[in-house]
Amino acid sequence: MEPRKIVLPDSEIPKQWYNILSDLPTPMCPPLHPGTGKPVQPEDLAPVFPMNLIEQEMSTERFIDIPEPVIEKYLLWRPTPLCRAFNFEKLLDAPVKIYYKYEGASPAGSHKPNTAIPQAYYNKIFGIKRLSSETGAGQWGSALSMACAMFGLECRIFMVRISYDQKPYRRLMMTTWGGECIASPSDRTKAGQKILAENPDSPGSLGIAISEAIEDAVGGKDSRYSLGSVLNHVMLHQTVIGLEAQKQLAQIGEYPDVVMGCAGGGSNFAGIALPFIRDKIHGKDVLVVGAEPTSCPTLTRGPFAYDFGDTAMTTPLLPMYTLGHGFIPEPIHAGGLRYHGMAPIVSHLVREGMIEPRAYDQIETFTAGVKWARSEGVIPAPETNHVIAAVVQEAERAKQEGKQKTILFNFSGHGMVDLAAYDAFLSGRLHQHKLSDEAIALALKSIENLPKP
Amino acid sequence: MEPRKIVLPDSEIPKQWYNILSDLPTPMCPPLHPGTGKPVQPEDLAPVFPMNLIEQEMSTERFIDIPEPVIEKYLLWRPTPLCRAFNFEKLLDAPVKIYYKYEGASPAGSHKPNTAIPQAYYNKIFGIKRLSSETGAGQWGSALSMACAMFGLECRIFMVRISYDQKPYRRLMMTTWGGECIASPSDRTKAGQKILAENPDSPGSLGIAISEAIEDAVGGKDSRYSLGSVLNHVMLHQTVIGLEAQKQLAQIGEYPDVVMGCAGGGSNFAGIALPFIRDKIHGKDVLVVGAEPTSCPTLTRGPFAYDFGDTAMTTPLLPMYTLGHGFIPEPIHAGGLRYHGMAPIVSHLVREGMIEPRAYDQIETFTAGVKWARSEGVIPAPETNHVIAAVVQEAERAKQEGKQKTILFNFSGHGMVDLAAYDAFLSGRLHQHKLSDEAIALALKSIENLPKP
Repeated sequence: MEPRKIVLPDSEIPKQWYNILSDLPTPMCPPLHPGTGKPVQPEDLAPVFPMNLIEQEMSTERFIDIPEPVIEKYLLWRPTPLCRAFNFEKLLDAPVKIYYKYEGASPAGSHKPNTAIPQAYYNKIFGIKRLSSETGAGQWGSALSMACAMFGLECRIFMVRISYDQKPYRRLMMTTWGGECIASPSDRTKAGQKILAENPDSPGSLGIAISEAIEDAVGGKDSRYSLGSVLNHVMLHQTVIGLEAQKQLAQIGEYPDVVMGCAGGGSNFAGIALPFIRDKIHGKDVLVVGAEPTSCPTLTRGPFAYDFGDTAMTTPLLPMYTLGHGFIPEPIHAGGLRYHGMAPIVSHLVREGMIEPRAYDQIETFTAGVKWARSEGVIPAPETNHVIAAVVQEAERAKQEGKQKTILFNFSGHGMVDLAAYDAFLSGRLHQHKLSDEAIALALKSIENLPKP
Repeated sequence: MEPRKIVLPDSEIPKQWYNILSDLPTPMCPPLHPGTGKPVQPEDLAPVFPMNLIEQEMSTERFIDIPEPVIEKYLLWRPTPLCRAFNFEKLLDAPVKIYYKYEGASPAGSHKPNTAIPQAYYNKIFGIKRLSSETGAGQWGSALSMACAMFGLECRIFMVRISYDQKPYRRLMMTTWGGECIASPSDRTKAGQKILAENPDSPGSLGIAISEAIEDAVGGKDSRYSLGSVLNHVMLHQTVIGLEAQKQLAQIGEYPDVVMGCAGGGSNFAGIALPFIRDKIHGKDVLVVGAEPTSCPTLTRGPFAYDFGDTAMTTPLLPMYTLGHGFIPEPIHAGGLRYHGMAPIVSHLVREGMIEPRAYDQIETFTAGVKWARSEGVIPAPETNHVIAAVVQEAERAKQEGKQKTILFNFSGHGMVDLAAYDAFLSGRLHQHKLSDEAIALALKSIENLPKP
């Protein structure tokens, strides 16, 4: 009997993260200070992040030790199982072996705790007492609340008002773990007060919530800000996913032809992909695919440009694929993929041709996700459905080409608290989203006058 | 480093269930036909269950082979990890080692699929096309919907109206897996129509939903009824939990002093306990504790008596601890523990002194559950919080006695879709429930004229 799950014993958990900055064939463009237009210096970031994380953000060391207290917390659910999707393979009836890394096994139900835990730890040992952050759909806010509870930090999450009202379960998860969850815009910050003065019924946006969280964090001596995706140190922490997968595949003598993940800010995708891209840089033949929504097609239709990470233009300018910080995505149900930009590391690798981006419509992603749930059991998060749609497409290609392929993908999270989206799909209330060239051109006006990479 | 998780490879999954009926020192009282007052015969049950499950219900074989197609589906998430709760131990600061079997790892988030999968399988090979069942909180209905999807059966679930309205996520889980979920009372059955005629706004009850599901199943040639707890074959299927735990403990040279589970209908509790009670019958010194709510204290305050399994008095008379089928528990948030009776196997073993029942108030259970979530990560189901409260109590006793104890408990499920109950607790809206002797005496009037064991 071929095993369905390849498990690593606790003793085999990776002891180091992998830093792809050490292996890039061409250097990345630096982030720029929006005021001076010059590369950002560590001290510029000191009010926002603790210095130990800033150093990690800029490090070019190939492997970085995972601190023992972080490993201890990782072991609450890591190593996650590498699973073979026998039932889904049978359903697709194509010449493919499908392996997936199940990140839904974490207590928060997604990959987010992989970076929440080390971020809480590094802030704690730096003497910080409180973290502030924002959350859209709520995955990140709940993961950070849990991590803060474990290291005795206070946690304050600004949650986009419309999600706060529509997703009470995610909010309740945060409070159960001891975090404070505030609907954004709020009257706690000047940024929030300004928006509320203009529109007391504002539904909020991730951009506004980021501005509030940064303002809230920077104001206090013992408080810092925390970000759940996009930045280099976040990608670094997530590589534990791919590193484990490599060990697990080696156990059974497999190596994937294709590595896939869904890409919003880029962190779960980078987590599975970067260790394999290292192999690719060193000559290995492996296709790496990032799956994004057609309604927020950052990698497939945006330019590579300097842009702000937030709508309110408070962050450094990041070199990335972007639809412009003024882009407002349609309300698709995969909240985690509704981001105008993309992690600079992922963007750089797409530009270098190391990653192939593909876009999928929400109808095909939910179609794939429901097939998955009814054959493999776990109901995937709407974000995860994008990579499952990519797997379906890849299996069809293998059938057409008559080629045997081994596919590895990252199952970023389960959808137990995202079931309203399934309800909308199953009752025919979801529609294809077509984004016109004009809409993209309009959104890109917001970056017209910024420096070019 | 002592491992936090003891994992079994897929190849080590148990190949047989354990049937405690083969090892009982004294025989159980038989279930009785309510009309004749005579022991129920297999053919009496044939319209309700397929004959292969009826045979299993009555079997006294010690070990029963798990069919290969069932093992294949079990492997989607089984073997579940046996975990050591290092963080919770540290918090309790008592001389205890705490191990728990994590049944929240299943796609439905609880132990329920352990029996849903084989029940769907046995019905399928018996030629059945559709299963009907009822669900209260929704754990069972969702597990059965998933199992039916995997074996190509139709699934119809009658869900107690008040839960149907208050717990949309559980309902959506069922429909995502392809099940049909109907609010009960419904106009689909005579039982439902009768209730609706009397009270169009009836909130429903588990008793009514059982009556509707049985009527719906018995009406059709290719349809049968399915029950998620109480019956012998359900307990049998759940023993996979305890059998795995025994293998995992043996790996690290441990044997528990105390085995604990929460007890509603009795199935998750029996699942972990029965293989250890086998050892106890053969002389092993192990304390087995069942944790129930003070608001529905079947084992701690009910008599051992013959009673109906449902409120509508349609089932055979079962020999069990019961509060009377007329008992209406207060609306505590652990829906899975709101059952007036208890599995006959569990009841028999309590009567024989092999199991020690204890009752816990919902305030102490949520207090324990929140401590757990903030130290160990996973947010427990409200049902599971009862056994965690029992673990806290046992740890305190160990401290008082100055004795080292090894505790094993069954973590029956996670609470990701039960967060409203946490919200009520954290915002001070939960209260202690005191059940008066008068209330119990009143409820027990409903069994006054039934045969006595």
